[in-house]
Amino acid sequence: MTISYAGEVPNGSSFGCFWRILCKWRGSVYKLVWRELLAYLTLYYTINLIYRFALNEHQQRIFEKVRQYFGAQIESIPMSFVLGFYVSLVVKRWWEQYKLLPWPDTLALFISAGIPGADETGRLMRRNIVRYAILAYVITLQRVSLRVKRRFPTWQHVVDSGLMLESERKVFEKMDGKSPMSKYWMPLVWATNIINRARKEGLITSDHIVQTLLVELSDIRRRLGALIGYDTVCVPLVYTQVVTLALYTYFVAALMGRQLLPPAPGSTSKYEPDVYFPVFTALQFCFYVGWLKVAEVLINPFGEDDDDIELNWLIDRHIKAAYMIVDEMHEEHPELLKDQYWE
Amino acid sequence: MTISYAGEVPNGSSFGCFWRILCKWRGSVYKLVWRELLAYLTLYYTINLIYRFALNEHQQRIFEKVRQYFGAQIESIPMSFVLGFYVSLVVKRWWEQYKLLPWPDTLALFISAGIPGADETGRLMRRNIVRYAILAYVITLQRVSLRVKRRFPTWQHVVDSGLMLESERKVFEKMDGKSPMSKYWMPLVWATNIINRARKEGLITSDHIVQTLLVELSDIRRRLGALIGYDTVCVPLVYTQVVTLALYTYFVAALMGRQLLPPAPGSTSKYEPDVYFPVFTALQFCFYVGWLKVAEVLINPFGEDDDDIELNWLIDRHIKAAYMIVDEMHEEHPELLKDQYWE
Amino acid sequence: MTISYAGEVPNGSSFGCFWRILCKWRGSVYKLVWRELLAYLTLYYTINLIYRFALNEHQQRIFEKVRQYFGAQIESIPMSFVLGFYVSLVVKRWWEQYKLLPWPDTLALFISAGIPGADETGRLMRRNIVRYAILAYVITLQRVSLRVKRRFPTWQHVVDSGLMLESERKVFEKMDGKSPMSKYWMPLVWATNIINRARKEGLITSDHIVQTLLVELSDIRRRLGALIGYDTVCVPLVYTQVVTLALYTYFVAALMGRQLLPPAPGSTSKYEPDVYFPVFTALQFCFYVGWLKVAEVLINPFGEDDDDIELNWLIDRHIKAAYMIVDEMHEEHPELLKDQYWE
Amino acid sequence: MTISYAGEVPNGSSFGCFWRILCKWRGSVYKLVWRELLAYLTLYYTINLIYRFALNEHQQRIFEKVRQYFGAQIESIPMSFVLGFYVSLVVKRWWEQYKLLPWPDTLALFISAGIPGADETGRLMRRNIVRYAILAYVITLQRVSLRVKRRFPTWQHVVDSGLMLESERKVFEKMDGKSPMSKYWMPLVWATNIINRARKEGLITSDHIVQTLLVELSDIRRRLGALIGYDTVCVPLVYTQVVTLALYTYFVAALMGRQLLPPAPGSTSKYEPDVYFPVFTALQFCFYVGWLKVAEVLINPFGEDDDDIELNWLIDRHIKAAYMIVDEMHEEHPELLKDQYWE
Amino acid sequence: MTISYAGEVPNGSSFGCFWRILCKWRGSVYKLVWRELLAYLTLYYTINLIYRFALNEHQQRIFEKVRQYFGAQIESIPMSFVLGFYVSLVVKRWWEQYKLLPWPDTLALFISAGIPGADETGRLMRRNIVRYAILAYVITLQRVSLRVKRRFPTWQHVVDSGLMLESERKVFEKMDGKSPMSKYWMPLVWATNIINRARKEGLITSDHIVQTLLVELSDIRRRLGALIGYDTVCVPLVYTQVVTLALYTYFVAALMGRQLLPPAPGSTSKYEPDVYFPVFTALQFCFYVGWLKVAEVLINPFGEDDDDIELNWLIDRHIKAAYMIVDEMHEEHPELLKDQYWE
Repeated sequence: MTISYAGEVPNGSSFGCFWRILCKWRGSVYKLVWRELLAYLTLYYTINLIYRFALNEHQQRIFEKVRQYFGAQIESIPMSFVLGFYVSLVVKRWWEQYKLLPWPDTLALFISAGIPGADETGRLMRRNIVRYAILAYVITLQRVSLRVKRRFPTWQHVVDSGLMLESERKVFEKMDGKSPMSKYWMPLVWATNIINRARKEGLITSDHIVQTLLVELSDIRRRLGALIGYDTVCVPLVYTQVVTLALYTYFVAALMGRQLLPPAPGSTSKYEPDVYFPVFTALQFCFYVGWLKVAEVLINPFGEDDDDIELNWLIDRHIKAAYMIVDEMHEEHPELLKDQYWE
Repeated sequence: MTISYAGEVPNGSSFGCFWRILCKWRGSVYKLVWRELLAYLTLYYTINLIYRFALNEHQQRIFEKVRQYFGAQIESIPMSFVLGFYVSLVVKRWWEQYKLLPWPDTLALFISAGIPGADETGRLMRRNIVRYAILAYVITLQRVSLRVKRRFPTWQHVVDSGLMLESERKVFEKMDGKSPMSKYWMPLVWATNIINRARKEGLITSDHIVQTLLVELSDIRRRLGALIGYDTVCVPLVYTQVVTLALYTYFVAALMGRQLLPPAPGSTSKYEPDVYFPVFTALQFCFYVGWLKVAEVLINPFGEDDDDIELNWLIDRHIKAAYMIVDEMHEEHPELLKDQYWE
Repeated sequence: MTISYAGEVPNGSSFGCFWRILCKWRGSVYKLVWRELLAYLTLYYTINLIYRFALNEHQQRIFEKVRQYFGAQIESIPMSFVLGFYVSLVVKRWWEQYKLLPWPDTLALFISAGIPGADETGRLMRRNIVRYAILAYVITLQRVSLRVKRRFPTWQHVVDSGLMLESERKVFEKMDGKSPMSKYWMPLVWATNIINRARKEGLITSDHIVQTLLVELSDIRRRLGALIGYDTVCVPLVYTQVVTLALYTYFVAALMGRQLLPPAPGSTSKYEPDVYFPVFTALQFCFYVGWLKVAEVLINPFGEDDDDIELNWLIDRHIKAAYMIVDEMHEEHPELLKDQYWE
Repeated sequence: MTISYAGEVPNGSSFGCFWRILCKWRGSVYKLVWRELLAYLTLYYTINLIYRFALNEHQQRIFEKVRQYFGAQIESIPMSFVLGFYVSLVVKRWWEQYKLLPWPDTLALFISAGIPGADETGRLMRRNIVRYAILAYVITLQRVSLRVKRRFPTWQHVVDSGLMLESERKVFEKMDGKSPMSKYWMPLVWATNIINRARKEGLITSDHIVQTLLVELSDIRRRLGALIGYDTVCVPLVYTQVVTLALYTYFVAALMGRQLLPPAPGSTSKYEPDVYFPVFTALQFCFYVGWLKVAEVLINPFGEDDDDIELNWLIDRHIKAAYMIVDEMHEEHPELLKDQYWE
Repeated sequence: MTISYAGEVPNGSSFGCFWRILCKWRGSVYKLVWRELLAYLTLYYTINLIYRFALNEHQQRIFEKVRQYFGAQIESIPMSFVLGFYVSLVVKRWWEQYKLLPWPDTLALFISAGIPGADETGRLMRRNIVRYAILAYVITLQRVSLRVKRRFPTWQHVVDSGLMLESERKVFEKMDGKSPMSKYWMPLVWATNIINRARKEGLITSDHIVQTLLVELSDIRRRLGALIGYDTVCVPLVYTQVVTLALYTYFVAALMGRQLLPPAPGSTSKYEPDVYFPVFTALQFCFYVGWLKVAEVLINPFGEDDDDIELNWLIDRHIKAAYMIVDEMHEEHPELLKDQYWE
């Protein structure tokens, strides 16, 4: 589930405000980077040990030349700039996708206001319309999100959850035979038809309500369609590859160019200590790979990372809230009482 | 409360326009940074004194080598770029959250226009609807803001403030038992029901008003829902950690790499004076930590920093203004008189 | 008043297109920076002369060491990056504020279409509604803008200008006693009440017009409220301070580090000429301080800088245009004639 | 067709998450860059071999001087910054164009709700209106996209596809004779006229539906018009040229400045190994040219690149989905049944 | 007219995709920069020749010192960063202005739907309303664009073009006497009055149409008003000056600092060849000045540059299209026929 930490840092002015954030493990940079770092250090020490123990002196001199050449050239790969722009782009898309997720509350509010009546027809219509809205939501996310796909691998699972009826499943299966395109808009068409029928049968008493409901339904459709659009048309592959390749070649080159070797026998350089752990290369690795990990985690915001959006929780919440608004709370409101400030 | 200083710098063309801004203490970078700086300098001098008095000559040589190595390597952490992008992102989110805060004035205006009548039913309906809008506002902020949570720690506090009635508190407590999700939309559903009833009883005379009111209520719901969304889904934790870690490791490395030491005995370098205070390291510290503090303060805009938004003041203002519009000023307007330019 | 120069550079392809822009004085970087530059150069030469004539040789050597140290270290303050992001933010906010300023033309158009009748009641209503819209505009700007505050320091000044009537002033003064919050929405409530009355009395013949007018009024309120929001919640103080401090410390350090001194007696460096004017330091000063001046001028777009928005002119324009639309031009249009292309 | 890879990287936290992305060929940086790289290396080795075998010693010394000069100067071309801003701009425009593509689903939904009747007139009207909407879509894309132009090179091809009738083709051909401007709005005018007629004949029973349909049609027109606007007014040519020229001159200069030559006979530099393949120049080439390729691919998002949007597929989908909504599914919805949670 | 080249680069994946773009002349960087470059090189060679032939040896030594000093210091002007932000801002404003240009098609569509009748009154009203919309468009652009001003220097020219009638010209001239403000909204008020009259006389049969038309007219007014706003309130002058000055001082300093001189007699530097053409300075000049030219061309998007928007063509197109929609095509649509897929 998403990592919410804003509540832990209400006051930026307190001393060491962000320290507790550094100590979190779930969704943290440590959890994301440690395997990569371990692999990288293994490679680093393998090379280091080969130099120290497996090469003869002549080979060592050649190795040193190559190291020098790599060390000087790796700075010609201007990573931080392209990473900055790329991560910005991915973060922006991630947030836009989150904002696109429709909430059925508004539709439920409008339905509750527009289709009155505590009798069975009214209740049936209200419940079915919000059910269709949530069904459209689930069908879209099934396609977009691995989590939701895991929860609802087949139509039957949707039927079992109560969101789809048997008869509807048959329609879907018939349609899937005709064309493979996503059918998320079908429940919305059904919902429109119910609204139309309610108007004809006089349950809805004004055309304004019809207009408002149609506009809200079309807004839900637009959002679901846009979510599929974000899924279909990703950040161009070539952009992602350029950034990833730049990062990887940089650190592959650093494997050679940043080797900390014992000073050459006749060396007089007094400033290069024989450090056994490449502190700064490891730090740079954490920093740059961590920065790219931001993009890797967010490029698919509906996956199963710690930081991805918890869609299954949202689906359950929507079912509960929508039914509550259109059915349980329908036409109920506390008595009209004078408030405290009444004069 | 928020620091407003725009009024103090109306004229950027005047001499030294921003000087008076530098002298402010509340919400200032000094107030935010001084503890961190003090702690940092303490560490710095501890290390410095250890070098000067506790190490023997051989250890000093090693220390110098390490210093040299650290001093050369810290520049490989490209902080300013990642900080720039990160702070930009946080500032953008902060402002979006501020803009999302709904104002009940528009709703009150529409209600005042739509539900006429100075008799008790009309007044009751008008007052209850705006009260529900503000109640939804408070319930949302209770969840999002530490300040509002402090003011209204329990439902009873909300009841005491007059925003909620006893009977409503019971409904909320019953609902809390059923599901832990936020119930900010419940008062809005009640408001819808009152509007519906007013239409049925003929107080509202046109469907246009109903439509306008419903759209406005759904806009308030959308904004409150989005505020909760911003609170739940923060800037990804890994991004915050990468930036914070980069900053901290930079300054930890600078503790070694920027030590100002007495010149080595045989040194001939005439340009490194024996400075006793690390002026530029301290300045850099203020600068970078201050820059990050911008993000730390704004990442939770509803906390208790000097610069956070004063929600409690806003709540009081909304109660007063909304009641004034729908009740006191209702259907009153100054006599229609000819203005000065009438011909 | 605002400096409009787009008309002077219609053709970017012409030779030296921007030269004439460099020669403008009003609102120019020269006008904004010359005092600061003069003060800076005075300090620079004071230090320079102290070095040359007041210090003995030993002190001069120390001075040179400090200069060297400062000269090497000032580059560690990465100003251009933080300035770039900060100025971007301020420019964005400046333009958003300008776009938020409401124009009463649309409201006047709707009123003219919706409230017909050349008799006195119709005219009175139309004129009063637009007067109230402009009054709300002025009350808001009184709070936000120094210029408008200077023009209308008290309610009495507003009354004298003809925008407010005596009776309305009394209401405002009574309300000011009750609560100090801004009352910009009160005239809009009155306008709503007039619209309501016009509907009841049958002047407005359709609910669509009422809806359209209410939505437009609420849009004006939203814009005015947002303008006050921009005024209350500025760019966080700490951000402004960090940028300003970075700039100032940079140039204070440059006072030492960029001193151009005569070559030391035994120096053999043949490349450092004894320049008497610090050309590049002065250029850098103009450049960076000018860049910050962009932010200083725009952070309060309603002040009295050359480049600030001329609100008083706008107020006069709005009064004239609004009355013209709702009164003079009401229901008048040139005869319906066949145009030139009629076949 | 567009390369969708989001589904392959659901979990950024897994080890080596982006590796599989690096291995894709379609739409990859390798596929885009390999010809350019091959050409570049050919040039590089030609020069290298000329130096080694065709020049005499004196010419070699001159060559080395030129190489030195070029090598030192090429860094004065600050490519990464301008590339970053330029690619950002192109990516933004690409995404805006994708989002502008209208989807006929909403219109179909509204039509299905607004024009009832299973008789022939109703069906004819509904089918014709959505056909006109898709026809406007195709006419616009014909102008904007090479792919769609290939599919529909003449009006006759559109007629053959069933989107246009013979009689309509004649109108278009007559109009083309009168004025060469794009006629994408003509089918939308026809659709409006059909809606008008349906209202007059009483098929549409409320003015709200007419309003909703007109607004939706005008939204489609706005989007199609904006797409043509994006096509007509590209990123300014001079911007594209500046970026491309900077890149090309950089690598032309690198052809000389980055030549890896055998050490000069008397050279003592022990650090420049005689590398036979210019590893880092090739990497830089891939990196920068790949970065520019992002812009080259996206500057015309409706072309025939691997990563361009598959418009023909969209057209087919729209035809199917729209007819399905307005005709097959019209007024059909599964029986109103009690759902699983009914109490 | 605008340079459209997107059609020439449909496939970014083809070899050398952008080469053909480099060969364009109209609107190219060559055409924009060649005069500046020529002037610059003339100055460069003048100084170069003075050094070589007019100075004695002592003066040459001083010259070399100054050159050295300038060469070392010019890098302290961080141009690329401020240019990047500035050009981004100008490009954003340019595109926003283009998007603000209203298109009368939507209005014409609504009018055609709302005001039926093939008799003279209906036709007169329809034609007059769209004429007024286009007249408002022309009056606005007259003020904003040099091109349109050239085409319509006086009211009489507008009358001659058939957009304005004699009687209307008189009203405008009378109003111009009263107040100098822009009167672009006057034709829109007339249009509103005609709509009102059409409603009263029963030509428009529903209030929904009136509402839709009023909202569309107010949208046109908003766009035209915003265009004037962009013209009045430019990018702050000080920003433009700072960027331009930075660029100019950089290249003035480069005139000295980048002089390529023959090696000093006793010099042993073997790496500075005596190049007779300052290749890289010229390239840098093209690059940076070309980058600024992007801003110079776009800061006034309605001027007469190759890349500016062709407003006169747009005006003609709007006249034709709008009359066609409201008159020729009015109530005409091809017969309702069964399409190909009818079952």
